Amino acid sequence: MKRICFLLQVKRHRLEEYKQRHAQVWPEMLQALRDTGWHNYSLFLRDDGLLVGYLETPDFEAALKGMAATEINARWQTQMAEFFDMGGEHADRAMQPLTEVFHLD
Amino acid sequence: MKRICFLLQVKRHRLEEYKQRHAQVWPEMLQALRDTGWHNYSLFLRDDGLLVGYLETPDFEAALKGMAATEINARWQTQMAEFFDMGGEHADRAMQPLTEVFHLD
Repeated sequence: MKRICFLLQVKRHRLEEYKQRHAQVWPEMLQALRDTGWHNYSLFLRDDGLLVGYLETPDFEAALKGMAATEINARWQTQMAEFFDMGGEHADRAMQPLTEVFHLD
Repeated sequence: MKRICFLLQVKRHRLEEYKQRHAQVWPEMLQALRDTGWHNYSLFLRDDGLLVGYLETPDFEAALKGMAATEINARWQTQMAEFFDMGGEHADRAMQPLTEVFHLD
């Protein structure tokens, strides 16, 4: 299992709505994440909109591609795109893993 | 077990040395972390020095206090302080948890 961390930027004036949406993610979306290898997946938000994603997966490229191939992800990412500072690009196309420099089990 | 994420800023011109130090953390420091409740603890670094910490712990306040009470942590944090953009303050005194807005087991 590999540990993956990525960063995104949520628009400051949309933070509350972003939080609300993520308190009620569609069950089909959750199932698709599970099915495509997203484990122990958390999102953390700083007050200025910096968003940290952390997950564990056998293969992050495969997890991204697996989700990208699902219809539910396309619908979710289209709805979420307006929350991000990315000119409408889908968030899952901008999840660049940071370098892990330390780990303690 | 609670999931904790915090952010720090490493000086850009010290990134390589920071990485090297964390590839060989003192065994006594690792043991102290384990003993005080730091589990599944990772550090991730972005190219500009933004550092993401992620860990799982029963009680983050207790984990911080437990480490702060050890002599090995005082020595480690004193050596590490020069790597951070914090005016010499010890990093473990600036680990402010972000808000978790989503989790999938």
